[in-house]
Amino acid sequence: MEQVKVVLNDNEIPRQWYNIQADMPTPMLPPLHPGTGKPVGPDDLAPVFPMNLIEQEVCQDRWIDIPEEVLEKYLLWRPTPLCRARNFEKLLGTPVKIYYKNEGVSPAGSHKPNTAVPQAYYNKVFGIKRLSTETGAGQWGSALAMACKIFHLECRVFMVRVSYEQKPYRRLMMNTWGAECIPSPSTLTNAGRQVLASHPDSPGSLGIAISEAVEDAVTHEGARYSLGSVLNHVLLHQTIIGLEAQRQMEKIGVYPDVVIGCAGGGSNFAGISLPFVRDKISGKKITVIAAEPSSCPTMTRGPFAYDFGDLAKTTPLLPMYTLGHDFVPAPIHAGGLRYHGMAPIVSHLVKEKLVEARAYNQLETFDAGVKWARSECFISAPETNHAIAAVVEEAMRAKEEGKEKVILFDWSGHGLIDLTAYDAYLSGRLEHYELPEVEIQRALKAIDGLPKP
Amino acid sequence: MEQVKVVLNDNEIPRQWYNIQADMPTPMLPPLHPGTGKPVGPDDLAPVFPMNLIEQEVCQDRWIDIPEEVLEKYLLWRPTPLCRARNFEKLLGTPVKIYYKNEGVSPAGSHKPNTAVPQAYYNKVFGIKRLSTETGAGQWGSALAMACKIFHLECRVFMVRVSYEQKPYRRLMMNTWGAECIPSPSTLTNAGRQVLASHPDSPGSLGIAISEAVEDAVTHEGARYSLGSVLNHVLLHQTIIGLEAQRQMEKIGVYPDVVIGCAGGGSNFAGISLPFVRDKISGKKITVIAAEPSSCPTMTRGPFAYDFGDLAKTTPLLPMYTLGHDFVPAPIHAGGLRYHGMAPIVSHLVKEKLVEARAYNQLETFDAGVKWARSECFISAPETNHAIAAVVEEAMRAKEEGKEKVILFDWSGHGLIDLTAYDAYLSGRLEHYELPEVEIQRALKAIDGLPKP
Repeated sequence: MEQVKVVLNDNEIPRQWYNIQADMPTPMLPPLHPGTGKPVGPDDLAPVFPMNLIEQEVCQDRWIDIPEEVLEKYLLWRPTPLCRARNFEKLLGTPVKIYYKNEGVSPAGSHKPNTAVPQAYYNKVFGIKRLSTETGAGQWGSALAMACKIFHLECRVFMVRVSYEQKPYRRLMMNTWGAECIPSPSTLTNAGRQVLASHPDSPGSLGIAISEAVEDAVTHEGARYSLGSVLNHVLLHQTIIGLEAQRQMEKIGVYPDVVIGCAGGGSNFAGISLPFVRDKISGKKITVIAAEPSSCPTMTRGPFAYDFGDLAKTTPLLPMYTLGHDFVPAPIHAGGLRYHGMAPIVSHLVKEKLVEARAYNQLETFDAGVKWARSECFISAPETNHAIAAVVEEAMRAKEEGKEKVILFDWSGHGLIDLTAYDAYLSGRLEHYELPEVEIQRALKAIDGLPKP
Repeated sequence: MEQVKVVLNDNEIPRQWYNIQADMPTPMLPPLHPGTGKPVGPDDLAPVFPMNLIEQEVCQDRWIDIPEEVLEKYLLWRPTPLCRARNFEKLLGTPVKIYYKNEGVSPAGSHKPNTAVPQAYYNKVFGIKRLSTETGAGQWGSALAMACKIFHLECRVFMVRVSYEQKPYRRLMMNTWGAECIPSPSTLTNAGRQVLASHPDSPGSLGIAISEAVEDAVTHEGARYSLGSVLNHVLLHQTIIGLEAQRQMEKIGVYPDVVIGCAGGGSNFAGISLPFVRDKISGKKITVIAAEPSSCPTMTRGPFAYDFGDLAKTTPLLPMYTLGHDFVPAPIHAGGLRYHGMAPIVSHLVKEKLVEARAYNQLETFDAGVKWARSECFISAPETNHAIAAVVEEAMRAKEEGKEKVILFDWSGHGLIDLTAYDAYLSGRLEHYELPEVEIQRALKAIDGLPKP
């Protein structure tokens, strides 16, 4: 009987998050104030985020202590298992060893609680009573709903309408945890009303939903906004995934040649990869791959530019790969990857060629996901299937080349709430979605006139 | 930081199942052939089950080796974590320590794969090509679909119609794993057609679905039937839950005063409890509670009698607590507990007063489940909420009595596919369902004239 899983005991959980800002080989560009064109200061962000999280956002320390109260809640499901995907290897007939970190064991079913819990905690400590946020596929919204309930905060979630309709169970999860879930664009905010005026049937996008949630936060007493990806502190919290994986691989004397994560805003990808990118910066030979959807190919087809994080242009200008802040991606089932931009940290690493981006179309991701479900048994979230598609590509290349590689990827969440997407795939109704270059060029007009990096 | 979870490494997984038949203080009554009234022999069951499982069904050995091929598949998700529910304890303000075994981490989200995997394996070894079965809430059907895919068997599942409609995602899980899922009563079998003729709107029941699945198996070449509960070998496979829990509790030097599981057909309850009942038989002081729904109160309001396992009277007569084989329970969301009978092993233990049965109504189970979700974060299956209701009762009693007890229960599965039930509860639409004694007495007429124990 060969070992399949590597588990850690509660007392082996990492006590610090890893902050890659301390190890960047070249300095990152600062976010800019859209009015002045100057770097934003902490005070600019104070109406939106609590100051303790703003400090964490700009902190340059390599290691940041995880508060005891957060660790205690992490232990509800963490450390998560590291698993060897032997059945999938066999199915592919590949010489590679495939390991995956199972983040689907969290109560919300994904990696998102890793940052939802500390964000709710820091807001609570700062005296905040209410959080609002946006959600794509609903993974983030449900995670924040859960975290707010833990720390007794009110919670309102704006959910991208196409996902709200495709995934009714996500809303019910949020309700079960006591949160409010509103389809976006909504009539509750100016941002939402503006979109609905010109596009009454808008399927919504993360960009629109962010605008609504930020507006909701700044117009309510004792309220703040919470973001599930993109920002430095969010990526920081997620590094617990990669840090655990490092300990687990050490235990069995293995080190990965390839590390893979799917990337929408970038936090899941950063979570598994940043501790390994640190090793790469120190000279380790390792390939790090961010997998994105070909219908929202931010890193593979967008420019590195300054752009807004949201449609209503309420955020600072972020230095990142972007398709333009009014780009509305096709309604793919991987709602969590439908974002026009990419985390500045991940963007910087792609620009520095420390990270390689690849795009996969919806059909090939579900093909990979069904292969996975029928061998490893776990049914993956549509987002996660992008990572699996990249694993398949790498594994088949290694097979052709006859190379024995070790692949590690983040199995970022289960797809039990996304089964209608599998239904569409299995019955041949799943769409491919081509994205003509002309559409990208049209969307990119939105960044004309903004400062250039 | 206090320890929350106790995990086992892959090499600590139990290598044998525990067979309580070896330790019963009084002999169990045999199943009877309905035609002859004599004990059934292996040959009587041969058209329905493979001989290797029939042998296991009647085996009297205390320990039965788990085949290597089964262990290998168990390791995809087992050993499962044992967790301390500190947040729930705090919410209840109780002096008890509450531990739960998290069976929701399996790919199907419940304890059911513990027996689905060995059943598919033994059928495969015996040369069977196709399995058919019934399912209530869909937990069992999806588990068998998964197990059949692992061992390359065809799979057809008859799903109780009310659950099929309430839980469309369960069907999609089965499809994703390559199985066929048919709402029962169906027009595919004589048994189904007969029910539809007299009750075209029948919500179905496990009893009806079993009849359909058995008929389907015996009328197809190279096919057998597979049952997700009730039978001795099914309960045997589930003992891995309690055996792991014993190892985990030993690790932290704790032993339970109370062991709780919800019981529909009895396999989940048996899984967590039988290894502890063994200790009780040896003199250990311990309370063992089986929690059932008050709308299907087999053990708390039914007699111990010989009865058929299914509506169409195709099974042997089983010695068990029963409400009569044509009892159709109210359409509660805990579809997995809608069964008129109870496993003979569990029934025998109840009769011998080694196990105590308690009934909970739908509303109090969801009240307990929402409390659980809002403190421990995990959202429970409606079936599991019955166990939680019993935990609440025990914990509050201990609080009144000022007793420091240790409670262990099986968190048998998550409720992410059952969120419409939470929706109904939270919006005040969930029904209570009274069961008048006259209805029970009417249903029990079905066992008039059958042999008496």
